[in-house]
Amino acid sequence: MTDEARAFVPGHLTGFFSAHPNANSSAAGSRGAGVALSHGVDVRVRHGSHTDADSSLVALNGDAVPIGPVGGVRDALDAPDAAVTVETPLPLGAGFGVSGAVALGAAYGINAAYDRRRSANDLVSIAHGAEVEAGTGLGDVVAQARGGLPIRLDPGDPDHGRLDGIPAAPRVEYVTFGSVSTEAVLSGDTTRLTAAGERALADLRREPTAPRLVALSRRFARQAGLLTDRVADAVEAVRDAGGDAAMAMLGDTVFAFGTDLSDAGYDPEVCVVHPAGGTLHAPKQGTSTPQSVE
Amino acid sequence: MTDEARAFVPGHLTGFFSAHPNANSSAAGSRGAGVALSHGVDVRVRHGSHTDADSSLVALNGDAVPIGPVGGVRDALDAPDAAVTVETPLPLGAGFGVSGAVALGAAYGINAAYDRRRSANDLVSIAHGAEVEAGTGLGDVVAQARGGLPIRLDPGDPDHGRLDGIPAAPRVEYVTFGSVSTEAVLSGDTTRLTAAGERALADLRREPTAPRLVALSRRFARQAGLLTDRVADAVEAVRDAGGDAAMAMLGDTVFAFGTDLSDAGYDPEVCVVHPAGGTLHAPKQGTSTPQSVE
Repeated sequence: MTDEARAFVPGHLTGFFSAHPNANSSAAGSRGAGVALSHGVDVRVRHGSHTDADSSLVALNGDAVPIGPVGGVRDALDAPDAAVTVETPLPLGAGFGVSGAVALGAAYGINAAYDRRRSANDLVSIAHGAEVEAGTGLGDVVAQARGGLPIRLDPGDPDHGRLDGIPAAPRVEYVTFGSVSTEAVLSGDTTRLTAAGERALADLRREPTAPRLVALSRRFARQAGLLTDRVADAVEAVRDAGGDAAMAMLGDTVFAFGTDLSDAGYDPEVCVVHPAGGTLHAPKQGTSTPQSVE
Repeated sequence: MTDEARAFVPGHLTGFFSAHPNANSSAAGSRGAGVALSHGVDVRVRHGSHTDADSSLVALNGDAVPIGPVGGVRDALDAPDAAVTVETPLPLGAGFGVSGAVALGAAYGINAAYDRRRSANDLVSIAHGAEVEAGTGLGDVVAQARGGLPIRLDPGDPDHGRLDGIPAAPRVEYVTFGSVSTEAVLSGDTTRLTAAGERALADLRREPTAPRLVALSRRFARQAGLLTDRVADAVEAVRDAGGDAAMAMLGDTVFAFGTDLSDAGYDPEVCVVHPAGGTLHAPKQGTSTPQSVE
Protein backbone atom coordinates (compact mmCIF):
# COMPACT_ATOMS: atom_id res chain seq x y z
CA MET A 1 0.00 0.00 0.00
CA THR A 2 1.22 3.43 -0.95
CA ASP A 3 -0.14 6.78 0.17
CA GLU A 4 -0.21 8.10 -3.35
CA ALA A 5 -1.09 6.66 -6.73
CA ARG A 6 -1.23 8.05 -10.25
CA ALA A 7 -3.25 7.07 -13.28
CA PHE A 8 -3.59 8.16 -16.90
CA VAL A 9 -6.90 7.99 -18.72
CA PRO A 10 -7.25 8.93 -22.39
CA GLY A 11 -9.67 11.59 -23.54
CA HIS A 12 -12.52 10.26 -25.66
CA LEU A 13 -14.26 11.89 -28.60
CA THR A 14 -17.68 10.38 -29.29
CA GLY A 15 -18.51 10.50 -32.99
CA PHE A 16 -22.08 9.24 -32.72
CA PHE A 17 -24.24 7.61 -30.08
CA SER A 18 -27.70 6.45 -29.06
CA ALA A 19 -28.94 7.03 -25.50
CA HIS A 20 -30.22 4.10 -23.42
CA PRO A 21 -31.45 5.33 -20.04
CA ASN A 22 -32.16 2.73 -17.37
CA ALA A 23 -33.12 2.98 -13.69
CA ASN A 24 -30.12 0.72 -13.03
CA SER A 25 -27.09 2.91 -13.70
CA SER A 26 -24.94 -0.16 -14.43
CA ALA A 27 -27.20 -1.07 -17.34
CA ALA A 28 -27.79 2.50 -18.48
CA GLY A 29 -25.48 3.99 -21.05
CA SER A 30 -25.04 4.56 -24.73
CA ARG A 31 -24.13 2.70 -27.87
CA GLY A 32 -21.87 4.34 -30.41
CA ALA A 33 -18.31 4.86 -31.50
CA GLY A 34 -15.46 7.25 -30.93
CA VAL A 35 -11.77 7.90 -30.53
CA ALA A 36 -9.57 7.43 -27.44
CA LEU A 37 -6.95 10.18 -27.47
CA SER A 38 -3.32 10.34 -26.36
CA HIS A 39 -4.40 13.67 -24.86
CA GLY A 40 -6.00 12.68 -21.60
CA VAL A 41 -5.98 13.26 -17.88
CA ASP A 42 -3.23 12.56 -15.36
CA VAL A 43 -4.87 11.86 -12.02
CA ARG A 44 -3.02 11.79 -8.71
CA VAL A 45 -4.75 10.45 -5.62
CA ARG A 46 -3.37 11.12 -2.15
CA HIS A 47 -4.56 9.85 1.14
CA GLY A 48 -6.59 11.85 3.54
CA SER A 49 -6.38 15.53 2.67
CA HIS A 50 -9.77 16.17 1.01
CA THR A 51 -11.84 18.00 3.61
CA ASP A 52 -14.30 20.05 1.53
CA ALA A 53 -17.98 19.24 2.02
CA ASP A 54 -18.40 19.01 -1.78
CA SER A 55 -17.33 15.44 -2.50
CA SER A 56 -17.07 16.13 -6.24
CA LEU A 57 -14.28 18.70 -5.94
CA VAL A 58 -10.90 18.03 -7.51
CA ALA A 59 -7.87 20.22 -8.18
CA LEU A 60 -7.92 20.53 -11.98
CA ASN A 61 -4.91 22.30 -13.50
CA GLY A 62 -4.55 24.12 -10.19
CA ASP A 63 -8.19 25.18 -9.69
CA ALA A 64 -10.80 23.63 -7.40
CA VAL A 65 -13.44 22.32 -9.84
CA PRO A 66 -16.46 20.06 -9.24
CA ILE A 67 -16.38 16.95 -11.46
CA GLY A 68 -19.80 15.38 -10.85
CA PRO A 69 -19.00 11.65 -10.85
CA VAL A 70 -15.99 11.97 -8.52
CA GLY A 71 -18.34 12.20 -5.53
CA GLY A 72 -19.86 8.85 -6.45
CA VAL A 73 -16.44 7.28 -6.94
CA ARG A 74 -15.14 8.50 -3.57
CA ASP A 75 -18.34 7.17 -2.02
CA ALA A 76 -18.29 3.74 -3.70
CA LEU A 77 -14.68 3.16 -2.68
CA ASP A 78 -15.22 4.49 0.84
CA ALA A 79 -12.57 7.17 0.49
CA PRO A 80 -14.30 10.49 1.26
CA ASP A 81 -10.98 12.09 2.17
CA ALA A 82 -9.12 11.12 -1.03
CA ALA A 83 -7.40 14.16 -2.51
CA VAL A 84 -7.70 14.08 -6.32
CA THR A 85 -5.40 16.24 -8.42
CA VAL A 86 -5.82 16.39 -12.21
CA GLU A 87 -3.60 17.74 -14.96
CA THR A 88 -4.97 17.81 -18.49
CA PRO A 89 -4.56 19.74 -21.75
CA LEU A 90 -8.22 19.02 -22.60
CA PRO A 91 -11.01 21.57 -22.10
CA LEU A 92 -14.10 20.74 -20.01
CA GLY A 93 -17.51 20.48 -21.67
CA ALA A 94 -16.10 20.35 -25.17
CA GLY A 95 -16.70 16.68 -25.98
CA PHE A 96 -13.51 15.05 -24.70
CA GLY A 97 -15.01 13.01 -21.89
CA VAL A 98 -12.97 14.75 -19.22
CA SER A 99 -15.52 14.01 -16.49
CA GLY A 100 -15.48 10.30 -17.32
CA ALA A 101 -11.69 10.26 -17.53
CA VAL A 102 -11.33 11.92 -14.14
CA ALA A 103 -13.89 9.52 -12.64
CA LEU A 104 -12.03 6.47 -13.98
CA GLY A 105 -8.63 7.84 -13.01
CA ALA A 106 -9.90 8.58 -9.51
CA ALA A 107 -11.24 5.03 -9.23
CA TYR A 108 -7.89 3.54 -10.29
CA GLY A 109 -5.96 5.89 -8.03
CA ILE A 110 -8.14 5.38 -4.96
CA ASN A 111 -8.07 1.61 -5.42
CA ALA A 112 -4.26 1.68 -5.31
CA ALA A 113 -3.72 4.38 -2.68
CA TYR A 114 -6.35 2.91 -0.34
CA ASP A 115 -5.52 -0.75 -1.14
CA ARG A 116 -9.14 -1.54 -2.04
CA ARG A 117 -8.24 -4.66 -4.08
CA ARG A 118 -10.98 -4.24 -6.66
CA SER A 119 -10.71 -5.63 -10.17
CA ALA A 120 -10.39 -3.45 -13.28
CA ASN A 121 -14.01 -4.20 -14.28
CA ASP A 122 -15.22 -3.24 -10.79
CA LEU A 123 -13.47 0.12 -11.06
CA VAL A 124 -14.88 0.75 -14.54
CA SER A 125 -18.36 -0.13 -13.25
CA ILE A 126 -17.99 2.28 -10.34
CA ALA A 127 -16.85 5.14 -12.56
CA HIS A 128 -19.49 4.41 -15.20
CA GLY A 129 -22.28 4.29 -12.62
CA ALA A 130 -21.10 7.52 -11.03
CA GLU A 131 -20.97 9.24 -14.43
CA VAL A 132 -24.50 8.11 -15.32
CA GLU A 133 -25.83 9.19 -11.90
CA ALA A 134 -24.16 12.59 -12.27
CA GLY A 135 -25.69 13.01 -15.74
CA THR A 136 -22.35 14.05 -17.23
CA GLY A 137 -22.05 11.21 -19.73
CA LEU A 138 -23.27 7.78 -20.79
CA GLY A 139 -20.51 5.97 -22.64
CA ASP A 140 -17.16 7.68 -22.20
CA VAL A 141 -15.98 5.63 -19.23
CA VAL A 142 -16.24 2.21 -20.88
CA ALA A 143 -14.62 3.59 -24.03
CA GLN A 144 -11.83 5.17 -21.99
CA ALA A 145 -11.27 1.85 -20.23
CA ARG A 146 -10.71 0.16 -23.61
CA GLY A 147 -8.67 2.66 -25.62
CA GLY A 148 -8.22 2.63 -29.40
CA LEU A 149 -11.24 3.38 -31.57
CA PRO A 150 -13.97 1.87 -29.38
CA ILE A 151 -17.30 0.67 -30.72
CA ARG A 152 -19.85 0.35 -27.94
CA LEU A 153 -22.14 -2.49 -29.04
CA ASP A 154 -24.34 -2.41 -25.93
CA PRO A 155 -24.99 0.22 -23.28
CA GLY A 156 -23.75 -0.21 -19.75
CA ASP A 157 -20.79 -1.20 -17.63
CA PRO A 158 -18.50 -4.20 -18.30
CA ASP A 159 -21.11 -6.60 -16.90
CA HIS A 160 -23.69 -5.37 -19.42
CA GLY A 161 -22.00 -3.90 -22.46
CA ARG A 162 -19.87 -5.55 -25.09
CA LEU A 163 -17.25 -3.54 -26.92
CA ASP A 164 -15.59 -3.91 -30.29
CA GLY A 165 -13.13 -1.62 -32.04
CA ILE A 166 -11.81 -0.33 -35.34
CA PRO A 167 -8.32 -1.82 -35.84
CA ALA A 168 -6.54 1.41 -36.80
CA ALA A 169 -4.33 4.04 -35.18
CA PRO A 170 -4.65 7.30 -37.12
CA ARG A 171 -3.25 10.70 -36.23
CA VAL A 172 -5.99 12.92 -34.79
CA GLU A 173 -6.57 16.65 -35.26
CA TYR A 174 -9.17 18.72 -33.43
CA VAL A 175 -10.27 22.33 -32.94
CA THR A 176 -12.53 23.43 -30.07
CA PHE A 177 -14.77 26.45 -30.47
CA GLY A 178 -16.61 26.16 -27.14
CA SER A 179 -18.75 23.98 -24.96
CA VAL A 180 -22.12 22.22 -25.24
CA SER A 181 -24.01 21.05 -22.15
CA THR A 182 -24.11 17.26 -22.11
CA GLU A 183 -26.61 17.38 -19.23
CA ALA A 184 -29.00 19.58 -21.23
CA VAL A 185 -28.93 17.30 -24.29
CA LEU A 186 -29.20 14.05 -22.35
CA SER A 187 -32.06 15.31 -20.17
CA GLY A 188 -34.07 16.39 -23.24
CA ASP A 189 -35.86 14.31 -25.88
CA THR A 190 -33.25 11.92 -27.28
CA THR A 191 -35.54 10.09 -29.73
CA ARG A 192 -34.14 11.70 -32.84
CA LEU A 193 -30.49 11.39 -31.90
CA THR A 194 -30.94 7.80 -30.82
CA ALA A 195 -32.50 6.84 -34.16
CA ALA A 196 -29.63 8.51 -36.00
CA GLY A 197 -27.09 6.87 -33.70
CA GLU A 198 -28.52 3.39 -34.23
CA ARG A 199 -28.32 3.85 -37.99
CA ALA A 200 -24.71 4.98 -37.78
CA LEU A 201 -23.76 2.02 -35.58
CA ALA A 202 -25.32 -0.50 -37.94
CA ASP A 203 -23.50 1.08 -40.88
CA LEU A 204 -20.15 1.21 -39.04
CA ARG A 205 -20.37 -2.45 -38.08
CA ARG A 206 -20.67 -3.35 -41.76
CA GLU A 207 -17.43 -1.48 -42.48
CA PRO A 208 -15.42 -0.70 -39.34
CA THR A 209 -12.76 1.66 -40.73
CA ALA A 210 -11.47 5.04 -39.60
CA PRO A 211 -12.68 7.02 -42.66
CA ARG A 212 -16.11 5.44 -42.25
CA LEU A 213 -16.22 6.52 -38.59
CA VAL A 214 -15.70 10.16 -39.62
CA ALA A 215 -18.25 10.02 -42.42
CA LEU A 216 -20.94 8.40 -40.25
CA SER A 217 -20.23 10.80 -37.38
CA ARG A 218 -20.62 13.72 -39.77
CA ARG A 219 -24.00 12.37 -40.92
CA PHE A 220 -25.07 11.73 -37.32
CA ALA A 221 -24.47 15.30 -36.13
CA ARG A 222 -26.71 16.64 -38.88
CA GLN A 223 -29.46 14.02 -38.54
CA ALA A 224 -29.50 14.35 -34.75
CA GLY A 225 -29.89 18.10 -35.00
CA LEU A 226 -26.79 18.69 -32.89
CA LEU A 227 -24.46 20.28 -35.44
CA THR A 228 -23.28 23.72 -34.31
CA ASP A 229 -22.74 26.52 -36.82
CA ARG A 230 -19.01 26.68 -36.22
CA VAL A 231 -18.51 22.92 -36.61
CA ALA A 232 -20.70 22.98 -39.74
CA ASP A 233 -18.49 25.68 -41.25
CA ALA A 234 -15.31 23.76 -40.38
CA VAL A 235 -16.64 20.51 -41.81
CA GLU A 236 -17.55 22.31 -45.03
CA ALA A 237 -14.09 23.85 -45.27
CA VAL A 238 -12.41 20.46 -44.73
CA ARG A 239 -14.65 18.81 -47.32
CA ASP A 240 -13.89 21.59 -49.80
CA ALA A 241 -10.18 20.88 -49.26
CA GLY A 242 -10.73 17.20 -50.11
CA GLY A 243 -10.81 15.83 -46.55
CA ASP A 244 -13.46 14.86 -44.04
CA ALA A 245 -14.32 15.92 -40.50
CA ALA A 246 -17.05 15.53 -37.88
CA MET A 247 -18.28 16.89 -34.56
CA ALA A 248 -17.31 15.61 -31.11
CA MET A 249 -20.37 14.64 -29.04
CA LEU A 250 -21.07 16.74 -27.04
CA GLY A 251 -18.93 19.77 -27.60
CA ASP A 252 -18.47 22.60 -30.05
CA THR A 253 -15.46 20.69 -31.38
CA VAL A 254 -14.52 19.48 -34.86
CA PHE A 255 -12.18 16.50 -35.34
CA ALA A 256 -10.52 14.77 -38.26
CA PHE A 257 -7.90 12.12 -38.98
CA GLY A 258 -4.55 12.55 -40.71
CA THR A 259 -3.94 16.18 -41.68
CA ASP A 260 -7.43 17.07 -42.86
CA LEU A 261 -7.95 20.09 -40.59
CA SER A 262 -4.42 21.39 -41.22
CA ASP A 263 -4.90 20.95 -44.95
CA ALA A 264 -8.01 23.14 -44.76
CA GLY A 265 -6.03 25.95 -43.12
CA TYR A 266 -6.87 25.30 -39.46
CA ASP A 267 -4.29 25.25 -36.68
CA PRO A 268 -5.55 22.19 -34.80
CA GLU A 269 -4.43 20.43 -31.67
CA VAL A 270 -2.70 17.22 -32.75
CA CYS A 271 -2.50 13.86 -31.00
CA VAL A 272 -2.81 10.17 -31.86
CA VAL A 273 -5.20 7.40 -31.00
CA HIS A 274 -4.30 6.07 -27.55
CA PRO A 275 -4.12 2.29 -27.88
CA ALA A 276 -4.62 1.49 -24.17
CA GLY A 277 -7.41 2.18 -21.75
CA GLY A 278 -6.94 3.98 -18.46
CA THR A 279 -4.00 2.62 -16.50
CA LEU A 280 -2.30 3.02 -13.21
CA HIS A 281 1.21 4.42 -13.55
CA ALA A 282 3.95 1.95 -12.69
CA PRO A 283 5.18 2.55 -9.15
CA LYS A 284 8.77 3.68 -8.73
CA GLN A 285 9.54 0.78 -6.40
CA GLY A 286 8.87 -2.93 -6.72
CA THR A 287 5.39 -3.96 -5.65
CA SER A 288 5.98 -7.51 -4.63
CA THR A 289 4.90 -8.46 -1.14
CA PRO A 290 5.17 -12.21 -0.85
CA GLN A 291 1.95 -13.92 0.12
CA SER A 292 1.29 -17.32 1.55
CA VAL A 293 -1.26 -19.40 -0.33
CA GLU A 294 -0.42 -22.82 1.04
CA MET B 1 -5.17 0.78 -48.64
CA THR B 2 -1.46 0.34 -48.24
CA ASP B 3 0.77 -2.47 -49.47
CA GLU B 4 2.40 -2.86 -46.09
CA ALA B 5 1.19 -2.70 -42.50
CA ARG B 6 2.86 -3.16 -39.14
CA ALA B 7 1.50 -4.24 -35.78
CA PHE B 8 2.84 -4.73 -32.27
CA VAL B 9 1.46 -7.44 -30.00
CA PRO B 10 2.64 -7.86 -26.39
CA GLY B 11 4.08 -11.13 -25.17
CA HIS B 12 1.93 -12.87 -22.55
CA LEU B 13 3.01 -14.90 -19.54
CA THR B 14 0.25 -17.17 -18.27
CA GLY B 15 0.49 -17.63 -14.51
CA PHE B 16 -2.25 -20.25 -14.18
CA PHE B 17 -5.02 -21.65 -16.35
CA SER B 18 -7.71 -24.25 -16.77
CA ALA B 19 -8.25 -25.92 -20.15
CA HIS B 20 -11.69 -25.91 -21.79
CA PRO B 21 -11.62 -27.83 -25.06
CA ASN B 22 -14.60 -27.50 -27.39
CA ALA B 23 -15.31 -28.76 -30.90
CA ASN B 24 -16.07 -25.13 -31.77
CA SER B 25 -12.68 -23.39 -31.73
CA SER B 26 -14.36 -20.02 -31.05
CA ALA B 27 -15.77 -21.37 -27.78
CA ALA B 28 -12.71 -23.43 -26.87
CA GLY B 29 -10.01 -21.84 -24.77
CA SER B 30 -8.81 -21.41 -21.25
CA ARG B 31 -9.61 -19.47 -18.12
CA GLY B 32 -6.81 -18.01 -16.07
CA ALA B 33 -4.62 -14.99 -15.53
CA GLY B 34 -1.32 -13.64 -16.70
CA VAL B 35 0.84 -10.70 -17.65
CA ALA B 36 0.99 -8.80 -20.96
CA LEU B 37 4.58 -7.72 -21.54
CA SER B 38 6.19 -4.69 -23.15
CA HIS B 39 8.45 -7.29 -24.76
CA GLY B 40 6.42 -8.55 -27.68
CA VAL B 41 6.41 -9.10 -31.41
CA ASP B 42 6.67 -6.56 -34.20
CA VAL B 43 4.87 -7.97 -37.21
CA ARG B 44 5.17 -6.58 -40.72
CA VAL B 45 2.80 -7.76 -43.44
CA ARG B 46 3.51 -7.14 -47.10
CA HIS B 47 1.40 -7.88 -50.08
CA GLY B 48 1.93 -10.79 -52.33
CA SER B 49 5.40 -12.25 -51.82
CA HIS B 50 4.70 -15.40 -49.77
CA THR B 51 5.02 -18.28 -52.20
CA ASP B 52 6.03 -21.23 -49.97
CA ALA B 53 3.61 -24.14 -49.87
CA ASP B 54 3.76 -24.09 -46.04
CA SER B 55 1.17 -21.46 -45.17
CA SER B 56 2.42 -21.23 -41.57
CA LEU B 57 5.90 -19.96 -42.48
CA VAL B 58 7.01 -16.52 -41.35
CA ALA B 59 10.40 -14.78 -41.29
CA LEU B 60 11.18 -14.65 -37.57
CA ASN B 61 14.28 -12.66 -36.64
CA GLY B 62 15.60 -13.48 -40.11
CA ASP B 63 14.86 -17.21 -40.18
CA ALA B 64 12.01 -19.02 -41.94
CA VAL B 65 10.02 -20.54 -39.08
CA PRO B 66 6.58 -22.23 -39.05
CA ILE B 67 4.17 -20.56 -36.61
CA GLY B 68 1.18 -22.90 -36.59
CA PRO B 69 -1.75 -20.47 -36.38
CA VAL B 70 -0.46 -18.16 -39.13
CA GLY B 71 -1.72 -20.61 -41.76
CA GLY B 72 -5.23 -20.33 -40.38
CA VAL B 73 -5.03 -16.54 -40.23
CA ARG B 74 -3.84 -16.24 -43.85
CA ASP B 75 -6.65 -18.59 -44.83
CA ALA B 76 -9.43 -16.84 -42.88
CA LEU B 77 -8.48 -13.45 -44.33
CA ASP B 78 -8.04 -14.85 -47.85
CA ALA B 79 -4.43 -13.70 -48.10
CA PRO B 80 -2.38 -16.82 -48.90
CA ASP B 81 0.39 -14.69 -50.40
CA ALA B 82 0.81 -12.33 -47.41
CA ALA B 83 4.46 -12.07 -46.44
CA VAL B 84 4.78 -11.99 -42.64
CA THR B 85 8.01 -10.75 -41.05
CA VAL B 86 8.47 -10.87 -37.28
CA GLU B 87 11.03 -9.28 -34.98
CA THR B 88 10.98 -10.25 -31.32
CA PRO B 89 13.31 -10.50 -28.33
CA LEU B 90 11.17 -13.33 -26.91
CA PRO B 91 12.11 -17.02 -27.23
CA LEU B 92 9.73 -19.56 -28.79
CA GLY B 93 8.20 -22.30 -26.66
CA ALA B 94 9.21 -20.69 -23.37
CA GLY B 95 5.80 -19.47 -22.20
CA PHE B 96 5.59 -16.00 -23.77
CA GLY B 97 2.73 -16.64 -26.16
CA VAL B 98 4.82 -15.85 -29.23
CA SER B 99 2.65 -18.00 -31.51
CA GLY B 100 -0.50 -16.19 -30.38
CA ALA B 101 1.18 -12.80 -30.70
CA VAL B 102 2.34 -13.53 -34.24
CA ALA B 103 -1.13 -14.82 -35.16
CA LEU B 104 -2.82 -11.68 -33.84
CA GLY B 105 -0.23 -9.36 -35.38
CA ALA B 106 -0.62 -11.13 -38.73
CA ALA B 107 -4.40 -10.72 -38.51
CA TYR B 108 -4.08 -6.98 -37.80
CA GLY B 109 -1.46 -6.53 -40.49
CA ILE B 110 -3.28 -8.49 -43.19
CA ASN B 111 -6.54 -6.65 -42.41
CA ALA B 112 -4.79 -3.34 -43.06
CA ALA B 113 -2.52 -4.32 -45.96
CA TYR B 114 -5.32 -6.16 -47.77
CA ASP B 115 -8.06 -3.68 -46.79
CA ARG B 116 -10.25 -6.45 -45.35
CA ARG B 117 -12.32 -4.05 -43.20
CA ARG B 118 -12.83 -6.45 -40.29
CA SER B 119 -13.46 -5.27 -36.75
CA ALA B 120 -10.97 -5.73 -33.91
CA ASN B 121 -13.10 -8.50 -32.36
CA ASP B 122 -13.27 -10.31 -35.72
CA LEU B 123 -9.48 -10.28 -35.97
CA VAL B 124 -9.07 -11.52 -32.41
CA SER B 125 -11.57 -14.31 -33.12
CA ILE B 126 -9.69 -15.34 -36.24
CA ALA B 127 -6.33 -15.43 -34.46
CA HIS B 128 -7.79 -17.23 -31.42
CA GLY B 129 -9.50 -19.86 -33.57
CA ALA B 130 -6.33 -20.43 -35.59
CA GLU B 131 -4.28 -20.80 -32.38
CA VAL B 132 -6.73 -23.34 -30.93
CA GLU B 133 -6.83 -25.31 -34.21
CA ALA B 134 -3.03 -25.35 -34.35
CA GLY B 135 -2.85 -26.60 -30.74
CA THR B 136 -0.24 -24.00 -29.83
CA GLY B 137 -2.28 -22.22 -27.15
CA LEU B 138 -5.71 -21.63 -25.66
CA GLY B 139 -5.83 -18.22 -24.08
CA ASP B 140 -2.89 -16.07 -25.11
CA VAL B 141 -4.58 -14.34 -28.03
CA VAL B 142 -7.51 -12.86 -26.09
CA ALA B 143 -5.13 -11.79 -23.31
CA GLN B 144 -2.76 -10.22 -25.85
CA ALA B 145 -5.70 -8.35 -27.39
CA ARG B 146 -6.47 -6.80 -23.99
CA GLY B 147 -3.09 -5.96 -22.49
CA GLY B 148 -2.40 -5.24 -18.83
CA LEU B 149 -2.78 -8.08 -16.32
CA PRO B 150 -5.62 -9.99 -17.98
CA ILE B 151 -7.99 -12.27 -16.09
CA ARG B 152 -9.79 -14.62 -18.44
CA LEU B 153 -13.17 -15.25 -16.82
CA ASP B 154 -14.50 -17.49 -19.58
CA PRO B 155 -12.83 -19.49 -22.33
CA GLY B 156 -13.12 -18.49 -25.96
CA ASP B 157 -12.99 -15.59 -28.38
CA PRO B 158 -14.54 -12.15 -27.78
CA ASP B 159 -18.02 -13.46 -28.60
CA HIS B 160 -17.71 -16.09 -25.86
CA GLY B 161 -15.23 -15.02 -23.22
CA ARG B 162 -15.40 -12.16 -20.78
CA LEU B 163 -12.21 -10.61 -19.50
CA ASP B 164 -11.35 -8.68 -16.38
CA GLY B 165 -7.99 -7.41 -15.17
CA ILE B 166 -5.79 -6.54 -12.22
CA PRO B 167 -5.49 -2.74 -12.08
CA ALA B 168 -1.71 -2.56 -11.66
CA ALA B 169 1.38 -1.94 -13.78
CA PRO B 170 4.40 -3.55 -12.10
CA ARG B 171 7.90 -3.94 -13.46
CA VAL B 172 8.45 -7.51 -14.68
CA GLU B 173 11.55 -9.69 -14.47
CA TYR B 174 11.99 -13.11 -16.07
CA VAL B 175 14.63 -15.77 -16.70
CA THR B 176 14.20 -18.50 -19.31
CA PHE B 177 15.94 -21.85 -18.85
CA GLY B 178 14.39 -23.62 -21.84
CA SER B 179 11.19 -24.71 -23.52
CA VAL B 180 8.19 -26.87 -22.63
CA SER B 181 5.89 -28.27 -25.33
CA THR B 182 2.48 -26.61 -25.04
CA GLU B 183 1.09 -29.11 -27.55
CA ALA B 184 2.25 -32.07 -25.41
CA VAL B 185 0.69 -30.72 -22.21
CA LEU B 186 -2.59 -29.62 -23.82
CA SER B 187 -3.03 -32.92 -25.68
CA GLY B 188 -2.53 -34.94 -22.46
CA ASP B 189 -4.82 -35.33 -19.43
CA THR B 190 -5.59 -31.81 -18.22
CA THR B 191 -7.89 -32.79 -15.33
CA ARG B 192 -5.42 -32.04 -12.58
CA LEU B 193 -4.19 -28.73 -13.99
CA THR B 194 -7.73 -27.59 -14.70
CA ALA B 195 -8.81 -28.25 -11.11
CA ALA B 196 -5.80 -26.31 -9.82
CA GLY B 197 -6.44 -23.50 -12.32
CA GLU B 198 -10.09 -23.13 -11.31
CA ARG B 199 -9.07 -22.85 -7.66
CA ALA B 200 -6.50 -20.19 -8.46
CA LEU B 201 -8.99 -18.18 -10.51
CA ALA B 202 -11.60 -18.20 -7.75
CA ASP B 203 -8.97 -17.07 -5.25
CA LEU B 204 -7.63 -14.32 -7.53
CA ARG B 205 -11.10 -12.91 -8.14
CA ARG B 206 -11.53 -12.44 -4.41
CA GLU B 207 -8.33 -10.38 -4.30
CA PRO B 208 -7.18 -9.23 -7.74
CA THR B 209 -3.72 -7.85 -6.93
CA ALA B 210 -0.30 -8.34 -8.52
CA PRO B 211 1.33 -10.06 -5.49
CA ARG B 212 -1.65 -12.42 -5.29
CA LEU B 213 -1.24 -13.31 -8.97
CA VAL B 214 2.35 -14.43 -8.34
CA ALA B 215 1.47 -16.39 -5.20
CA LEU B 216 -1.46 -18.20 -6.84
CA SER B 217 0.60 -18.92 -9.97
CA ARG B 218 3.34 -20.40 -7.80
CA ARG B 219 0.79 -22.67 -6.08
CA PHE B 220 -0.75 -23.63 -9.44
CA ALA B 221 2.52 -24.84 -10.98
CA ARG B 222 3.08 -27.21 -8.07
CA GLN B 223 -0.51 -28.45 -7.81
CA ALA B 224 -0.75 -28.96 -11.58
CA GLY B 225 2.46 -31.00 -11.57
CA LEU B 226 4.04 -28.72 -14.15
CA LEU B 227 6.85 -27.18 -12.10
CA THR B 228 10.27 -27.78 -13.64
CA ASP B 229 13.33 -28.36 -11.47
CA ARG B 230 15.06 -25.21 -12.59
CA VAL B 231 12.01 -23.01 -11.97
CA ALA B 232 11.50 -24.70 -8.58
CA ASP B 233 15.09 -23.84 -7.63
CA ALA B 234 14.68 -20.23 -8.77
CA VAL B 235 11.39 -19.81 -6.89
CA GLU B 236 13.02 -21.15 -3.74
CA ALA B 237 15.97 -18.77 -4.12
CA VAL B 238 13.64 -15.79 -4.61
CA ARG B 239 11.54 -16.79 -1.60
CA ASP B 240 14.67 -17.17 0.50
CA ALA B 241 15.62 -13.61 -0.48
CA GLY B 242 12.23 -12.34 0.73
CA GLY B 243 10.49 -12.08 -2.63
CA ASP B 244 8.11 -14.21 -4.67
CA ALA B 245 8.18 -15.77 -8.14
CA ALA B 246 6.28 -18.23 -10.31
CA MET B 247 6.48 -20.21 -13.53
CA ALA B 248 5.30 -19.09 -16.96
CA MET B 249 2.81 -21.53 -18.50
CA LEU B 250 4.06 -23.26 -20.54
CA GLY B 251 7.77 -22.73 -20.54
CA ASP B 252 10.84 -23.39 -18.44
CA THR B 253 10.65 -19.74 -17.37
CA VAL B 254 10.47 -18.06 -13.97
CA PHE B 255 8.93 -14.58 -13.58
CA ALA B 256 8.55 -12.06 -10.78
CA PHE B 257 7.46 -8.47 -10.22
CA GLY B 258 9.57 -5.57 -9.01
CA THR B 259 13.18 -6.60 -8.45
CA ASP B 260 12.59 -9.99 -6.86
CA LEU B 261 14.73 -12.02 -9.29
CA SER B 262 17.53 -9.44 -9.28
CA ASP B 263 17.42 -9.35 -5.49
CA ALA B 264 17.97 -13.11 -5.42
CA GLY B 265 21.10 -12.78 -7.54
CA TYR B 266 19.66 -13.54 -10.97
CA ASP B 267 20.39 -11.47 -14.07
CA PRO B 268 16.86 -11.36 -15.50
CA GLU B 269 15.37 -9.83 -18.61
CA VAL B 270 13.44 -6.74 -17.51
CA CYS B 271 10.32 -5.19 -18.98
CA VAL B 272 7.04 -3.69 -17.78
CA VAL B 273 3.39 -4.61 -18.07
CA HIS B 274 2.13 -3.50 -21.48
CA PRO B 275 -1.08 -1.58 -20.85
CA ALA B 276 -2.52 -1.96 -24.37
CA GLY B 277 -3.48 -4.96 -26.44
CA GLY B 278 -2.14 -5.65 -29.90
CA THR B 279 -2.31 -2.60 -32.12
CA LEU B 280 -1.66 -1.55 -35.65
CA HIS B 281 1.18 0.94 -35.91
CA ALA B 282 0.11 4.42 -36.91
CA PRO B 283 0.72 4.95 -40.62
CA LYS B 284 3.24 7.59 -41.62
CA GLN B 285 0.69 9.39 -43.78
CA GLY B 286 -2.85 10.55 -43.09
CA THR B 287 -5.46 7.83 -43.58
CA SER B 288 -8.47 9.88 -44.35
CA THR B 289 -10.25 9.08 -47.57
CA PRO B 290 -13.51 11.00 -47.58
CA GLN B 291 -16.58 8.83 -47.96
CA SER B 292 -20.08 9.68 -49.01
CA VAL B 293 -22.78 8.54 -46.61
CA GLU B 294 -25.62 10.77 -47.78
